[in-house]
Amino acid sequence: MADEMQRIALARRPSGDPVPDDFELKTETAAEPTPGEVLVEVTHFSLDPYMRGRMDDAKSYAEPVPIGGTMTAQGVGRVIKSNADGFSEGDMVTGMTGWASHAVMTAEGATRIPEGVPPTAVLGVLGMPGFTGWYGLNDLGRPKSGETLVVAAATGPVGSMVGQLAKAHGLRTVAIAGGAEKCKMAEELYGFDAAIDHRAHDDASSLRKALAEAAPDGIDIYFENVGGKVLEAVIPLMNTFGRIPVCGMVAWYGGVEDASDRLPMLWRSVLVKRMAVTGFIIADHWDRFGDFQKDVAPRVMNDEIAWREDIAEGLENAPQTFIEMLKGGNTGKQIMKVI
Amino acid sequence: MADEMQRIALARRPSGDPVPDDFELKTETAAEPTPGEVLVEVTHFSLDPYMRGRMDDAKSYAEPVPIGGTMTAQGVGRVIKSNADGFSEGDMVTGMTGWASHAVMTAEGATRIPEGVPPTAVLGVLGMPGFTGWYGLNDLGRPKSGETLVVAAATGPVGSMVGQLAKAHGLRTVAIAGGAEKCKMAEELYGFDAAIDHRAHDDASSLRKALAEAAPDGIDIYFENVGGKVLEAVIPLMNTFGRIPVCGMVAWYGGVEDASDRLPMLWRSVLVKRMAVTGFIIADHWDRFGDFQKDVAPRVMNDEIAWREDIAEGLENAPQTFIEMLKGGNTGKQIMKVI
Repeated sequence: MADEMQRIALARRPSGDPVPDDFELKTETAAEPTPGEVLVEVTHFSLDPYMRGRMDDAKSYAEPVPIGGTMTAQGVGRVIKSNADGFSEGDMVTGMTGWASHAVMTAEGATRIPEGVPPTAVLGVLGMPGFTGWYGLNDLGRPKSGETLVVAAATGPVGSMVGQLAKAHGLRTVAIAGGAEKCKMAEELYGFDAAIDHRAHDDASSLRKALAEAAPDGIDIYFENVGGKVLEAVIPLMNTFGRIPVCGMVAWYGGVEDASDRLPMLWRSVLVKRMAVTGFIIADHWDRFGDFQKDVAPRVMNDEIAWREDIAEGLENAPQTFIEMLKGGNTGKQIMKVI
Repeated sequence: MADEMQRIALARRPSGDPVPDDFELKTETAAEPTPGEVLVEVTHFSLDPYMRGRMDDAKSYAEPVPIGGTMTAQGVGRVIKSNADGFSEGDMVTGMTGWASHAVMTAEGATRIPEGVPPTAVLGVLGMPGFTGWYGLNDLGRPKSGETLVVAAATGPVGSMVGQLAKAHGLRTVAIAGGAEKCKMAEELYGFDAAIDHRAHDDASSLRKALAEAAPDGIDIYFENVGGKVLEAVIPLMNTFGRIPVCGMVAWYGGVEDASDRLPMLWRSVLVKRMAVTGFIIADHWDRFGDFQKDVAPRVMNDEIAWREDIAEGLENAPQTFIEMLKGGNTGKQIMKVI
């Protein structure tokens, strides 16, 4: 008997910040798994800022979500029908489920969740966000004891991983976060040496002043995931031979603030300070995923690395939760609980 | 008996493009070499775009020239008094002479010019400009056969080195140069596959159209030495995993053109295309100079690598020659002949 499923489709392309009418809840009949496939009942899926980029029809590293197509997401769930060797009903797996109650996945696209690992951890601290922070910091940031690191969205799953790993490497760590609650969390839960509330600073020069106080020896690594005024504030404070791994620019996903040309300022700093600016997409670096897990999973299980989740319930609430997350409404890794 | 010497001093800091009154010719008594020093009669010195940066009082990787101080330059000359072991009168040496007829140099700061090497070659093709092109292309550009390289100021001593080395690596090479004569020189003398006259394109979008035709498979390496509209034209044409070594931005040394904010466009490309942008100052990389010489000197002597000099005469004409060079008035490596 065919199962009924629900999914959130992209109804239209947003102009600027997404609004509820950009999404549509659809009820359909779940597909039957063909040979080599499994049908998964989704228990949770991840909401991440990168999904905003997939809603646009712009040339990017990934195909945009088509109009009517299911919003992209990594999820976890239980195999309820298996037509693939090596998978049985009841297995807990993770893969690209989309924003949906059910998903048909190929055996290659489904990964069993190891025993003892909390299933949702594979969406955050031990999944793509944690791996993004680990890879960008270690392979591109090249941290050295005594240096100073700055990361924004510092209580998010990427920023909190970057901060904790950098601290363990012996760096001074400076968090940028939105609001007093997140700043407290950055210092107390994630061990940042200082935290700056970007909402208390209207413009880049005010933010820069606060950063200069929090980073008296300058900035050696700016782990870039926001762009906008934070980037503008950071550039002049970068030290010679500074590194900027670039994995996101959430401040610019919904449009760009009005500003005079900041390219010459950046370029001058790149040259004068011999900086290395490197964009990366974590999907290019799966060859390092095993090293990441080996390094980080034991530290997560030992509580050496802290992580927090915000779990919202109900597939139908995913659009609103996503909209609020883009505005900084969450404090931990945002996860949707479907059942 | 003390020798009389002449030197060009910085009279005042330029506002925008330098003008003759920013410089002053001074006649003084040459200093006597103290123990460990030599007095050199300068025969030639080099004029390079980086010197424009030293005229400003901005924080940079090198100290600005003080008002009244001698303009900086690498030069070549003959030892006329030696107070240092290992140097005799008549030795041909190179070092930082400044824009001057005579210079006192320490033994450490003076390098003997090898037999068989034309003295002025150490100011260009076998000196800092050639080394800059070699290091930036090989160590930061990481050229691979079949890729496409773009370099501006392509007939200059850096650009012509970059183009010829890239061609030898099996890349398609595209030159940007100012005027029909230089474009012809880029193709015929330096072997570029295509050459674009930037003077024929008023804005970045027109230049971009020409570049897109000359680089139909996109751009893998943009060797950056100019900034400005060339950079703006290039960014959207960069390929995934593209590399941008940044060693200069001559278009912006005298001020910045009026433009809307181009930082978000750059940043989006850095991320989406996973680009590596790396600033470098060749003085940080003297450890590679021996490798450079070993690789390039034989190819220069065998005429596998072409090089051209523009030699202007008379110390007193250095300011005007420099001013014209910044506007692209020269076609080869600009050198001043002092005697």
